[in-house]
Amino acid sequence: MLGRLVEALGAKVRTDDATLARARADESGHATAAPPLALVEAEDIEDVQAVCRICTATGTPIVTRGAGTGLAGGAIGGAGEVVLSTARMDRILEISPANRLAVVQPGVLNGALNTVLAERGLWWPPDPASKDISSVGGNIATNAGGLLCAKYGVTRESVLALKVVLADGTLISVGHRTVKGVTGLDLCALMIGSEGVLGIIVECTLRLRPAITGPVPTLGAYFDDVAAAAAACSAVTAAHLEPAVMELLDEPILAQVSAYTGVDLIGRGRSFVLIQTDGPGAQQTAEAIRAVLEENGATVEFARDADEAALLVQVRRQVHPALTQLGTALIEDVAVPRDRLADMYVKIAEIAERHGVMVPTNAHAGDGNLHPTFVFAGTEVPPRVWDAADELFRYALELGGTLTGEHGVGVLKRRWLGDELGTDQLALQRRIKAAFDPDGLLNPGKVFAPAE
Amino acid sequence: MLGRLVEALGAKVRTDDATLARARADESGHATAAPPLALVEAEDIEDVQAVCRICTATGTPIVTRGAGTGLAGGAIGGAGEVVLSTARMDRILEISPANRLAVVQPGVLNGALNTVLAERGLWWPPDPASKDISSVGGNIATNAGGLLCAKYGVTRESVLALKVVLADGTLISVGHRTVKGVTGLDLCALMIGSEGVLGIIVECTLRLRPAITGPVPTLGAYFDDVAAAAAACSAVTAAHLEPAVMELLDEPILAQVSAYTGVDLIGRGRSFVLIQTDGPGAQQTAEAIRAVLEENGATVEFARDADEAALLVQVRRQVHPALTQLGTALIEDVAVPRDRLADMYVKIAEIAERHGVMVPTNAHAGDGNLHPTFVFAGTEVPPRVWDAADELFRYALELGGTLTGEHGVGVLKRRWLGDELGTDQLALQRRIKAAFDPDGLLNPGKVFAPAE
Ligand SMILES: Cc1cc2nc3c(=O)[nH]c(=O)nc-3n(C[C@H](O)[C@H](O)[C@H](O)COP(=O)(O)OP(=O)(O)OC[C@H]3O[C@@H](n4cnc5c(N)ncnc54)[C@H](O)[C@@H]3O)c2cc1C
Ligand SMILES: Cc1cc2nc3c(=O)[nH]c(=O)nc-3n(C[C@H](O)[C@H](O)[C@H](O)COP(=O)(O)OP(=O)(O)OC[C@H]3O[C@@H](n4cnc5c(N)ncnc54)[C@H](O)[C@@H]3O)c2cc1C
Repeated sequence: MLGRLVEALGAKVRTDDATLARARADESGHATAAPPLALVEAEDIEDVQAVCRICTATGTPIVTRGAGTGLAGGAIGGAGEVVLSTARMDRILEISPANRLAVVQPGVLNGALNTVLAERGLWWPPDPASKDISSVGGNIATNAGGLLCAKYGVTRESVLALKVVLADGTLISVGHRTVKGVTGLDLCALMIGSEGVLGIIVECTLRLRPAITGPVPTLGAYFDDVAAAAAACSAVTAAHLEPAVMELLDEPILAQVSAYTGVDLIGRGRSFVLIQTDGPGAQQTAEAIRAVLEENGATVEFARDADEAALLVQVRRQVHPALTQLGTALIEDVAVPRDRLADMYVKIAEIAERHGVMVPTNAHAGDGNLHPTFVFAGTEVPPRVWDAADELFRYALELGGTLTGEHGVGVLKRRWLGDELGTDQLALQRRIKAAFDPDGLLNPGKVFAPAE
Repeated sequence: MLGRLVEALGAKVRTDDATLARARADESGHATAAPPLALVEAEDIEDVQAVCRICTATGTPIVTRGAGTGLAGGAIGGAGEVVLSTARMDRILEISPANRLAVVQPGVLNGALNTVLAERGLWWPPDPASKDISSVGGNIATNAGGLLCAKYGVTRESVLALKVVLADGTLISVGHRTVKGVTGLDLCALMIGSEGVLGIIVECTLRLRPAITGPVPTLGAYFDDVAAAAAACSAVTAAHLEPAVMELLDEPILAQVSAYTGVDLIGRGRSFVLIQTDGPGAQQTAEAIRAVLEENGATVEFARDADEAALLVQVRRQVHPALTQLGTALIEDVAVPRDRLADMYVKIAEIAERHGVMVPTNAHAGDGNLHPTFVFAGTEVPPRVWDAADELFRYALELGGTLTGEHGVGVLKRRWLGDELGTDQLALQRRIKAAFDPDGLLNPGKVFAPAE
């Protein structure tokens, strides 16, 4: 098997220990029990097809890997598997301002692409906090969200068409270069968020937006407690106002990030909401939001200048690094209907207390997506953390929410998949997986637990 | 079979001639060769499940029908088939301003829903020209577009979750009540635009927007020829400007609609573009668009008041009725990349001339979606019309476009499906269809041609 790979792909096939060790893990902290057979650095579509043909002929599983920044263990390779990396397929093939689209290879990093687009007054909206280190293909395969997605949509809204290689090496083109098109089933939409289990995304036609111009008013709102802050954010949505950014930090996070960055926010309140508005009418919208927040008990301050605004944004971006100072930080990712945000915060506090675990939680409050973060010592997840996580997931589902708002299922959440989808839908999803990949070679054991 | 249906569903099973005659046709002008067995007026999810169970037990095909306004022959029932109508499932179940969502049954008419939403300052954006007469379920099953979709997206962007009954009566829930969610494959997205071949949509959770407030500046732009008008529209997109409405009428349409409505637009130019802008910055955007249009050869006039604006919009809405005065009007629906609009217009004129057919063509110019309309005498489509249509479809595909921007494939375009999707993807789509509907009972012969 390895011999055939090397024959076809030469030095693109990497089997050195350092490479294989890296390919066992992603940013979730989770790793496979043993290294994969090889990592192949594909450089073009033909390389991907060659790998797939050889793997199909030999019954070898294929794990597609973008930049490896995933938080669900979706791109990690184990014993007997080939990891197919798209990292070297990082070229921008076309930028068409007249059609407001770009065609790129999947390995290009989101941040690198947006730097080039910005020079032309254009913008690809998906903005995960990991944008500088994650790939466009990975963003699409996970349907990544970000700070701006309440206003500008998740990745799904920003993809027009894809080229996809199936497990047996077949190349198909799904979606359209046009902004509209309803010919046949929408397989482009189905590929988005499919976490490497249906096919390998090898070319991406992206829907762009004009870059946002003009001032971006920035507000910091301080609250006495997190439930009040969450309720105030729900009130902003209910008032039909559309912030570009609405990020909520609870007390434990605020304390930790204040200490870590030296910016004293915890001295001003026990919960903090960062708000930005943009585009036409930004100032007016910001004023209206301020009024709603104040009615809901906040002390609100406008950032006086761009530096102060940048500082607040910077503090928000330091949440994850700050938490890792306390121990291993397992980031969870539930989402709930936007008016249930406060309920979810109350429940998280109760669960944390009862199980004796720390669960600092921030939220993309504009879209009801919370990141409860389990912090513990050592690298093994303690059983009481899984118990607490289990309760938390079930409560999110009870509220009409979801297990994962943006990080995906990967290996870490597959045991709850059936709880959310139901038995009938889970069976249907497995049949669809089999329609794409009859031999079950693409990312086996990811999303769908191995058949017993 | 009929006996079992009547036993289970009583008077909801209609077999009178008038009902069955209506169920043979939709607004495409196309009809089946013979009436269906029955039309069932489902009133709730249990009714739909009961029909599906009986049809599965007896091997009877099921044609789902919303309001029957489709233009592709997707909802028409023929010999031996049961037509399952969702028209009576027309209740609004919930409106949640705090979550900016509504839950409705599929049969509610788009216009009726929006009237109720408007009272609460909310809005469901899909706006097909047929909104007052078409159902939400039908809009979703066809992924309907409309005048506003360049700015506000097609139906796909406005659906959060669906309840779906499969052919065997199984009920599944796909999508999320949350605005974000990536648990498993995105079957909600896959259902959108699926034209009744995968499952029956029985409940819809819709993503709403705050209603647009403030003035809506309205421009009429007159050009010497249609290619110039098309090029000017492309220039608006390329200049990063976002009109809410940008509708292009060519000379034959302008002549006919001027005569029909008595509003003399053809006296002012040989091609006309109607533009509206809305939301924050609307006036500024309108001025910027005016400048681009003038640079591209237009004579531009702002509507002086709301009445004048309404009159222009009204004229645009009369295009279809005006054309039907000339004969049978078969509306086509190609879409092309936005910078190829002028090319497509030039080609249409050439094809029309060569085949000796009339093809007046309007376009949703903001999204490259053209409606070439073949006008002929009698109700049979003459062979030269099919020949001309065939050439036109192939040219749209050559430009990187699509067969159908919003109307769907139905029966009328299935013969070209493989040309757009390619053989491999077509085979994959059929496997996915089979994963949902192994016995092939849902809308057989629609979208996918019957197996030979
Ligand atoms: C500090 C930090 C912050 C983060 N913030 C966010 C955030 O705000 N929002 C968010 O959504 N995520 C966030 N993430 C998670 C992660 O960055 C995203 O999931 C990202 O989209 C993954 O991209 P990647 O290129 O690293 O993909 P990988 O981790 O390499 O892969 C992720 C999944 O996609 C599949 N995949 C990758 N490329 C392809 C392809 N070409 N074809 C088919 N399948 C493919 C893999 O098999 C795997 O299942 C964050 C991560 C970190 C470390
Ligand atoms: C004057 C006129 C103007 C139009 N303008 C536009 C326009 O601007 N944009 C546009 O996109 N379309 C337009 N249309 C076409 C048509 O109105 C749309 O396709 C509309 O979405 C169809 O809705 P319906 O309820 O009438 O569906 P139907 O015609 O009843 O059905 C359409 C398809 O959807 C399926 N379907 C219906 N309901 C369900 C359900 N509950 N579950 C599963 N499948 C279902 C049917 O099987 C069929 O394949 C226009 C039509 C007319 C007559």
